[in-house]
Amino acid sequence: MFYHIQKLINPIVVDEPDPAAANALQEGLGGQFGEMRTMMQFLFQSFNFRGNGIPYLDLIQGIGIEEISHVELISKTIAQLLDGAPGYNGDKFDTPGAGGEATLDIGRLAKNPHHFIHGAQGALPVDAAGNPWSGSYVHNHGNLVLDLMDNLVLEATGRTQKARIYQMSDNKTLRATIAFLIVRDEAHQMAFAKALETLGIDWAKTLPIPKFDSSQYPEVKKLLDAGLHREQYHFRLDSSMMDLIFSGSAPANDGTELVTKKEPDESYPIPVAPERPEEFAPGLDPEMQSLADALTEFKEKTIKTMEKKAGPNPRKKK
Amino acid sequence: MFYHIQKLINPIVVDEPDPAAANALQEGLGGQFGEMRTMMQFLFQSFNFRGNGIPYLDLIQGIGIEEISHVELISKTIAQLLDGAPGYNGDKFDTPGAGGEATLDIGRLAKNPHHFIHGAQGALPVDAAGNPWSGSYVHNHGNLVLDLMDNLVLEATGRTQKARIYQMSDNKTLRATIAFLIVRDEAHQMAFAKALETLGIDWAKTLPIPKFDSSQYPEVKKLLDAGLHREQYHFRLDSSMMDLIFSGSAPANDGTELVTKKEPDESYPIPVAPERPEEFAPGLDPEMQSLADALTEFKEKTIKTMEKKAGPNPRKKK
Amino acid sequence: MFYHIQKLINPIVVDEPDPAAANALQEGLGGQFGEMRTMMQFLFQSFNFRGNGIPYLDLIQGIGIEEISHVELISKTIAQLLDGAPGYNGDKFDTPGAGGEATLDIGRLAKNPHHFIHGAQGALPVDAAGNPWSGSYVHNHGNLVLDLMDNLVLEATGRTQKARIYQMSDNKTLRATIAFLIVRDEAHQMAFAKALETLGIDWAKTLPIPKFDSSQYPEVKKLLDAGLHREQYHFRLDSSMMDLIFSGSAPANDGTELVTKKEPDESYPIPVAPERPEEFAPGLDPEMQSLADALTEFKEKTIKTMEKKAGPNPRKKK
Amino acid sequence: MFYHIQKLINPIVVDEPDPAAANALQEGLGGQFGEMRTMMQFLFQSFNFRGNGIPYLDLIQGIGIEEISHVELISKTIAQLLDGAPGYNGDKFDTPGAGGEATLDIGRLAKNPHHFIHGAQGALPVDAAGNPWSGSYVHNHGNLVLDLMDNLVLEATGRTQKARIYQMSDNKTLRATIAFLIVRDEAHQMAFAKALETLGIDWAKTLPIPKFDSSQYPEVKKLLDAGLHREQYHFRLDSSMMDLIFSGSAPANDGTELVTKKEPDESYPIPVAPERPEEFAPGLDPEMQSLADALTEFKEKTIKTMEKKAGPNPRKKK
Amino acid sequence: MFYHIQKLINPIVVDEPDPAAANALQEGLGGQFGEMRTMMQFLFQSFNFRGNGIPYLDLIQGIGIEEISHVELISKTIAQLLDGAPGYNGDKFDTPGAGGEATLDIGRLAKNPHHFIHGAQGALPVDAAGNPWSGSYVHNHGNLVLDLMDNLVLEATGRTQKARIYQMSDNKTLRATIAFLIVRDEAHQMAFAKALETLGIDWAKTLPIPKFDSSQYPEVKKLLDAGLHREQYHFRLDSSMMDLIFSGSAPANDGTELVTKKEPDESYPIPVAPERPEEFAPGLDPEMQSLADALTEFKEKTIKTMEKKAGPNPRKKK
Amino acid sequence: MFYHIQKLINPIVVDEPDPAAANALQEGLGGQFGEMRTMMQFLFQSFNFRGNGIPYLDLIQGIGIEEISHVELISKTIAQLLDGAPGYNGDKFDTPGAGGEATLDIGRLAKNPHHFIHGAQGALPVDAAGNPWSGSYVHNHGNLVLDLMDNLVLEATGRTQKARIYQMSDNKTLRATIAFLIVRDEAHQMAFAKALETLGIDWAKTLPIPKFDSSQYPEVKKLLDAGLHREQYHFRLDSSMMDLIFSGSAPANDGTELVTKKEPDESYPIPVAPERPEEFAPGLDPEMQSLADALTEFKEKTIKTMEKKAGPNPRKKK
Repeated sequence: MFYHIQKLINPIVVDEPDPAAANALQEGLGGQFGEMRTMMQFLFQSFNFRGNGIPYLDLIQGIGIEEISHVELISKTIAQLLDGAPGYNGDKFDTPGAGGEATLDIGRLAKNPHHFIHGAQGALPVDAAGNPWSGSYVHNHGNLVLDLMDNLVLEATGRTQKARIYQMSDNKTLRATIAFLIVRDEAHQMAFAKALETLGIDWAKTLPIPKFDSSQYPEVKKLLDAGLHREQYHFRLDSSMMDLIFSGSAPANDGTELVTKKEPDESYPIPVAPERPEEFAPGLDPEMQSLADALTEFKEKTIKTMEKKAGPNPRKKK
Repeated sequence: MFYHIQKLINPIVVDEPDPAAANALQEGLGGQFGEMRTMMQFLFQSFNFRGNGIPYLDLIQGIGIEEISHVELISKTIAQLLDGAPGYNGDKFDTPGAGGEATLDIGRLAKNPHHFIHGAQGALPVDAAGNPWSGSYVHNHGNLVLDLMDNLVLEATGRTQKARIYQMSDNKTLRATIAFLIVRDEAHQMAFAKALETLGIDWAKTLPIPKFDSSQYPEVKKLLDAGLHREQYHFRLDSSMMDLIFSGSAPANDGTELVTKKEPDESYPIPVAPERPEEFAPGLDPEMQSLADALTEFKEKTIKTMEKKAGPNPRKKK
Repeated sequence: MFYHIQKLINPIVVDEPDPAAANALQEGLGGQFGEMRTMMQFLFQSFNFRGNGIPYLDLIQGIGIEEISHVELISKTIAQLLDGAPGYNGDKFDTPGAGGEATLDIGRLAKNPHHFIHGAQGALPVDAAGNPWSGSYVHNHGNLVLDLMDNLVLEATGRTQKARIYQMSDNKTLRATIAFLIVRDEAHQMAFAKALETLGIDWAKTLPIPKFDSSQYPEVKKLLDAGLHREQYHFRLDSSMMDLIFSGSAPANDGTELVTKKEPDESYPIPVAPERPEEFAPGLDPEMQSLADALTEFKEKTIKTMEKKAGPNPRKKK
Repeated sequence: MFYHIQKLINPIVVDEPDPAAANALQEGLGGQFGEMRTMMQFLFQSFNFRGNGIPYLDLIQGIGIEEISHVELISKTIAQLLDGAPGYNGDKFDTPGAGGEATLDIGRLAKNPHHFIHGAQGALPVDAAGNPWSGSYVHNHGNLVLDLMDNLVLEATGRTQKARIYQMSDNKTLRATIAFLIVRDEAHQMAFAKALETLGIDWAKTLPIPKFDSSQYPEVKKLLDAGLHREQYHFRLDSSMMDLIFSGSAPANDGTELVTKKEPDESYPIPVAPERPEEFAPGLDPEMQSLADALTEFKEKTIKTMEKKAGPNPRKKK
Repeated sequence: MFYHIQKLINPIVVDEPDPAAANALQEGLGGQFGEMRTMMQFLFQSFNFRGNGIPYLDLIQGIGIEEISHVELISKTIAQLLDGAPGYNGDKFDTPGAGGEATLDIGRLAKNPHHFIHGAQGALPVDAAGNPWSGSYVHNHGNLVLDLMDNLVLEATGRTQKARIYQMSDNKTLRATIAFLIVRDEAHQMAFAKALETLGIDWAKTLPIPKFDSSQYPEVKKLLDAGLHREQYHFRLDSSMMDLIFSGSAPANDGTELVTKKEPDESYPIPVAPERPEEFAPGLDPEMQSLADALTEFKEKTIKTMEKKAGPNPRKKK
Repeated sequence: MFYHIQKLINPIVVDEPDPAAANALQEGLGGQFGEMRTMMQFLFQSFNFRGNGIPYLDLIQGIGIEEISHVELISKTIAQLLDGAPGYNGDKFDTPGAGGEATLDIGRLAKNPHHFIHGAQGALPVDAAGNPWSGSYVHNHGNLVLDLMDNLVLEATGRTQKARIYQMSDNKTLRATIAFLIVRDEAHQMAFAKALETLGIDWAKTLPIPKFDSSQYPEVKKLLDAGLHREQYHFRLDSSMMDLIFSGSAPANDGTELVTKKEPDESYPIPVAPERPEEFAPGLDPEMQSLADALTEFKEKTIKTMEKKAGPNPRKKK
C-alpha cells in the first residue's frame, strides 16, 4: 500500500521557461531508460518476487518507491520549463486569441507540439522524440541475478543519458533536477552492484558508468559533497531489510561507504502552477468558478498556505 | 513524495491457478482502461494541475495514490493465478527439463506465452490481447471540467470491463480481487461525479455506469454491504482537502452518503511466492544461495514472519 | 462530401456464432491489407491527388468510397459471428452474473478476449492477432504509377488473404461476406491493372493474383456467374469519369469485358442486433429505458420497420 | 452504403503555404482526438449498435458520416498548406534537382520530414508529433450511456485542441478550416449532451467545453452568427430519426435551440492541386502523359470544369 | 560487406509439424530478446563503434554476423514446424477449398492466425504474442562498458527464455534448434563477460545466467560435450583480432578455456519447402509455371541438387 | 550462413557534419521503405521460399544479402553526418560539461534528440520522424508473383524517396551515399521487373519509377555512366543461378542490357570514428584504457592499419 505527502524530493529552481529543454528532459521521464521505466520495472520485479531473499526484495522495491517521487519531480520540472512559454502574464479572465491574435505561435514551432495541443504546457508520458512510453520497456526476467544486472544496466544508461542532457542547456530549472537525478542514479548503481557483490561479482574499477569525473558539473558537485550518491532511504513506513545489502564499502571501490538512512531526506514545497487561459486550463468560467469557490471557507487560507510552501509565484502579475 | 508499507489493500484469496483467468485479468492491469492507466492519468493530472482549486487537486491525486495500491493488488493476483500452473510441487533444487521432459508444456498453449517465457509466471504490463501498455492512454487535457469528465468515463469503463471479467470465471482468487475493484471503481465514479456536481451538473439516475444491480454478484454484495462503494481515504500522510468534495449525498441519487475516512482501511498480508526452478526463478545455485543466506542473521526470523503474514504456503511440499 | 443509406452492400447470411471465425475475419477489417486500409489508402490518395488526370482520380476515389461500405459490411458480419456466443436467449432484464454464475466463460477463452471485454461482442479496429490498425499502413506516394501499382499489390494481397480465410471455416455467415469480398477484390485488381494498361503495361496472363480457379469455391462461383468481378459502380451522386478507364477488355486477358454501371447494385437490410445484458449493452435500466421510449411516438413503428428490413430476429425468445 | 459528391463541406481559403501550420493541423486529422478518430469511433458504434433505440443510432451514425467529410476537408487543407512550400512555380517538365540543386531543402528542416519524403506534400494519417493513427483510439464500449459520454468527452477534447491550434497561426487557410471545425465540434457536443439529457442528465452551465467566448475568434464568430453550432444535417439519403433527439433547447442552456435540417448545407468546390515535379507527382513522363491524355476527348473540358469549380489556380505560372 | 553460402549453421531435424511450438519459437526470432535483436544490436554497435579498440569491435561485430545465420536457422525451423500443418499431401495442382471444404481450419484456431493468413506457413518477424519486432529493442549506448554489459544481459535473457521454451515441447525439430541456440548464447555470454574481464570485472561463480546444469537437457548435453559453448568463429573473410579477447580461461571459472577457431564449423543443407496450393504458394498456374521452367536447362539438375542437399522431402507424395 | 569483410560497398565522402541531413537519411535506413526493410523482406522471402524455382530464390536472396551491406553503408554515413556536430576537436581526456558549459547544446535542438541522447552521435533503427522500425513492414505473402510485385513497389518507393532526399541537401557525404542507393534501387527494380517478365508481364515504358532523367543529378550521372544501374553481383561464396533471370534486355526497354557479374565490385575502407568524450564514448577512463591497451602488442600497428585504410582522420587535432 502506498502513501504520499504533497512535497517534492528535491527543490525546483526558478529560471526562464525553455520548451526545448523541457522536451529533452522528457527522455528522462518517458524515455526507454527514464524514470517511468525504473519505477515500473522495480515495482513489477518486487510484486513478482519469488523466494525468501527478503533483503533483495526490500532493496528493489525501496528504490522503486523512490522512483515514483522522481517521476513526480521530473514532471513538475518539465511543466515549469514549459509554463508561460508564450510569455503570458495577464489577468485571469483574459480571452485567448481575442481579435484573432496568434498568441500560441510558439506551440506550432515547438519540438513537440503536443506540449501545447494536448498537455496545456504540462509533462507528457512520452520521450524526447515524441514516442509514448511502452510497457515493453519493463524487464522482469524472474531470475534474481539477471534482474539485478538488468537494473544495473538500466541505471547506468539513465545516468549516461542524463549526463548528456545536462550538457544540452544551462537552464537552472533543468540543471537542478538533472543533477539530482545523476547523483541518485549513481546511488542506485551502487545498490544493484552491491547486491551482485553479495553474490560474488567484483566490479574492480568499472563503476560507476559512465566513468567520468561528474564533480566537474558544478550542480552535481554540491550533491556529491553532501554524500547523496552513497546513501539510500527505504521510503517504507514499516521499515525494511534493505540495509543488510546497502552498507559497507561502495562497489565503486573508491574508499566510500554506503549508508542506509533511518530518516528520509528533507522534502520541498511544490510550486503552484498559474492558470493559463490560452490553454483553457483549468478553464472555469466565472459562474463555475464561484461554485468552486463556494466549496470551502478555507479557500483564502489555502492559497496562502500554498504560497507559503512554494514561495511567491514569480510570474504573478504585480 | 511517496511511501509504502509491505501490505495489500485487499486480501488475496487462495484457489487453483488459472492462466486464462490471469490473462483476462491483465486487461484490468495493463489494458487501455486498467489500473496502470488510472494511476498514471490521475498522477499526471495532479502533477500538471493549474490554479488554486486545491480540493480538486487533492481528490484527483488521492485517488491516483490509491490506484498504485490497486496496481500492486492486481499484479499479485495475476501472479498467484499463474503460479504453479505446471503443477510443480517438488524440492528446491529439482532440475527443470531434466531428462528432456516437457515440464512447461502449458506455456506453449497459454493465452499469452509471455507469461511463461518472459515473466516467470508473473504479471506483465500488457493487456488481455498481449499489447504492451502505452503512454498514449494517459489523458491530461488541462481543462478541469474536461479532465473530470474523462476520469468519470475512465472509471465507468473500468467498472464495465471488470463486471464483464467477473462473469468469465468463478475462480475465487480472481473474484475476490475483481469484486473489490468493481466496488472501488464505483466509489471513484462517485468522486468525479460529485466534483462535477459542485460545478453544476445533475446526474439524475444515470450513475453508476453500467447501471445494473451489482449486488447480484455475491462477492460484490459483501463489499457493498460494508459501504466500500461510498467511502474514500486520501492516502496522504499530511492530510488533504478531499473531503470538501467527497461528502454529502452520492451522485447516484440513491439516498446514500459519501464518506471521506480519516483512517485508512485495514491492510492485508502479502503472500510469499515460492521458487520456480522451471523458470530459473530466483535461480540462485547452492553456492550463490549460501552467499545470499550469509547476508543476514535474521533469515530464519524473516521467513517465519513472512509465513505468519501470509499464512502457510498452500503449495509447499509436506 | 459523403452520404449514407442505412442498407448493406451485400446480404448478411444467418448461421451459428463462431468467435474464432470472427477473429480470423478481423484480418479483413483491421489487418494491414484489410478494408480499413483500402478505404483509407484510396481516400488519402484521392484527397492528395495532383494534376489533371481526372479519370484516374475518379477511379481511385470511387473504389475508396465502395470500401467504406465494405468496412460496414465486414463489421456487421464480425458482430453477427460474435453475437450470442454465450448462448444467451433470456429476457431483457435478466441479470448478468446473478448468483455468481460464470456466464461469459467464453470470453476468457476467446482468440481475442477484447471481443468480450472491450467490444460487447462487436467488431474492433484490430487484426487477427489483436494488433490495432495503424496509420502507417496507408501508402500514398504521390507518384501516379507507383500509387496504382501499390494499390494493385494491396488488392492482390487482400484477395490472397481472403481466399485463405475462406478455407478456414464453412460457417455461412463468414462465407457469404468473404466470397463477396474475394470477388470485389478481383474487380478492383482489374481496375488498377486497367489504369496501368492505359499507361502502357501489358499483364499477359499474370492476373488476377492469386491465379487459381476461384469458381471452385461455391459461394464465389455464384457471384462470378453474375459478373460481379468485372463491374464497378462509382458511388457518386454527381457522376464521374471512371468509365474512361474501367471499360473494354479486362486485363486478365480472359475474354471478359469491364463494365462501369450507371446504377448501383441492390442494397440489403441491416440486421438488428439484440440487447446483451451480460455485456451491459445498451444497458439502460427500466427508468432510463422509459425516458428513451418517451422520445418517440414512432417507437413501435420503428421496431416493425427494422424487423421488416432485417427479417425476424432468429435469436429472439419465443 | 456510402455515397459521395466531389465537393467540400466548407470552402478552402487561399493563403501562403505554411508547413509548420500544416503539421499542427495534422493533430486534428490523425491525432488521438482528431477527425479520423471521431469518424471511426462513431461508425464503429453505429455498426455495433444494439437494441431498438433507433434515434440514438441515427444520431451517432449521422455525425459519423459528417466526420468523413471533415477528414476530407482537413486533408485538403493540410495539402494546400504544404503545397508549393519549395516555392516552385516552373513549367511542367522542369527537372527536379537538375545540376545538383537542393530544391527541397525545406523538407530536411520541416517539423515532419515525412510530408516531403513520403507524402509528396500531402496530408498523412499521423498526428502533430508524427505518430501514426492507431485503432486503439476507437472507443466502443457497447453501453449506450457510456458511449455517449465518451463521445461528449471526445468532441470536447477536439474543440479544446482546435481552439489551441487556432491561436498558433493566423494563416487564413488554417483558420478557415479550424474555425469551421471548432463550431461543428460544438454542435456535436450539443448532440451527445442532448442525447444524455433524454436519459436524465442536466448539464446546467458546464457546456460547451472549453467554456470560453469563442466569438472572440473572428473567423468563428461569423459561423456562430449563422447558427452553425446549433444545427445538424443527417447526411442520409433515406432520412433518419435523428431529429427526435436533436431538437428543442440546447444543453448549453443559453436560450438557443437545436435544429435538425432537412437539406444539407451548401457544398464547395475542391481546389485542383498542381503537379510537383520535385516530388515526381504525378510523375508521368511525356510518353505516358500522352497515353493518359488519349483517354478522353473531354480532357480540355475537364480542366475548365475543375478550374471553374476551384477558381483559377493562384500559383499557376502566368 | 556481407557474403552468403546457401547452407545452415546447424542441421534442421525432421519431426511432425507443431504450430504452437512454432509460435513459441517466434519469441526466439522476433521477440524483444530474440535473434533479430541480437543481430541488429551488435551490427549497429559495430557500425557506430568509436575509438581504436579494434579487438572489441571485431568481437561485437563477429558475433553480430553469426546472429544473421541464427536468424536464418530459426526462420527455417519455424517454417518447418508450420509446414503442412493442414496435413496436405496432394498433387501440385490440387485446388484449395474446392467444393467449399474448410481445408485450412487449423489457421483459424492457431496461436497466431497470421502464420496462415499472412505468411503462407512461414516465419514472421514477430514475437510469441504476435507483436511485430521493434527498432526500439536495439540498444547502442556508445559507451563501451555499458554496451558490453547490455549485451551480456541480452545473451543471458536469450538463454533464459530459450531454456524455458525448451521445456515447452519435446518436438525434435524445435529441440535441435533451441538446444543449439542455448549453447551458442552461453558462448556469447562468455565473449562479453571476457571482454569485461579485460576491463577489470571478476565474475566469480555467477556465470552463466541462468545458473543451472543445462547438461540435463539431452540435446544440449551433446553440444556441450563437443565444446560448442566455449568456442567462437569470427565469420570474417579478412580475419579479425577477436582472439585477443576470446581466449584463455572462461569467465564461468569452471576450468574451461575459450577458443577462437580459425576455420568455420561445418555447414548443413537447407531443406526444400514444398509447394502449398492451399496458401497459393508459390502459386504459379501451369502457364506461368512453364514460363518459369523454360528459364533454365539446369532445372532437373537443380531439383536433384536441392534434394541431395536436404535429403528426400519426407512429406512428398509417393 | 553469412560472412563479412570489414570494407564498405561504396566510399564515404568527407564533408561537414549536418545533423538534419543525417535525420533525413534515417528514412533510407529505418523508414518503412528503407534498407532495413528491403534487407529483412528479401531475407524472409528467401528463408520461407517454396517450390523449385531456384533462380527466383537466388535472385531474391542475392539482393537481400546486398541490402545488408547497404544497411552498413547508410549507418556509417549517418554516423559521419552526425559526428562532431558540437565541433569538438579537443584532447582525449577533456571533461564534458566541465565548469557547467552547455557543450551539447546542439542535441537539444536536433531534429531527433535521440541522436545525441541515445546514440552517441550514431545511426539509429528509426525513420526521419523518429518512429522505430517495425516488423510489420516486412511483406512476405508466399505467392511468388505477389512477392515480386511487392518487391518492385518497394524498390520503386525507395528510389522515389531517395530522389527526394537527394534534393534536400548538397552535403557531399549525404550525396555520395544517396546517389549510390538511387542507382542500386534502379538495378533492383530491373531485377524484380525482369523476373516478372519471365512470367509474362511487359512493362513497356513505365520503368523505372519514378520516371525522370536521373542523370541530371551529377553524383548519379557518374554511376549511370559506369553502368551500375544495370548490373548485379550475387554476394554468394557458392555461386548462384541468379543470372538465368538477370540477363538480356533491361525491362526499362531503353536498349540497355542486364549483367550479372562474376566478381564483386570494389570495396572501400571504413573510416575510424573518433572518441567523443562529451558522449562518454567509448568512455574508458585511463585505468581501463591501459587494461584495454595491454590486450595487444599489435595495438600501434592496428591504428596505423586503420588510418591507412580510411586515410588520416580529418577532424583529428594537430
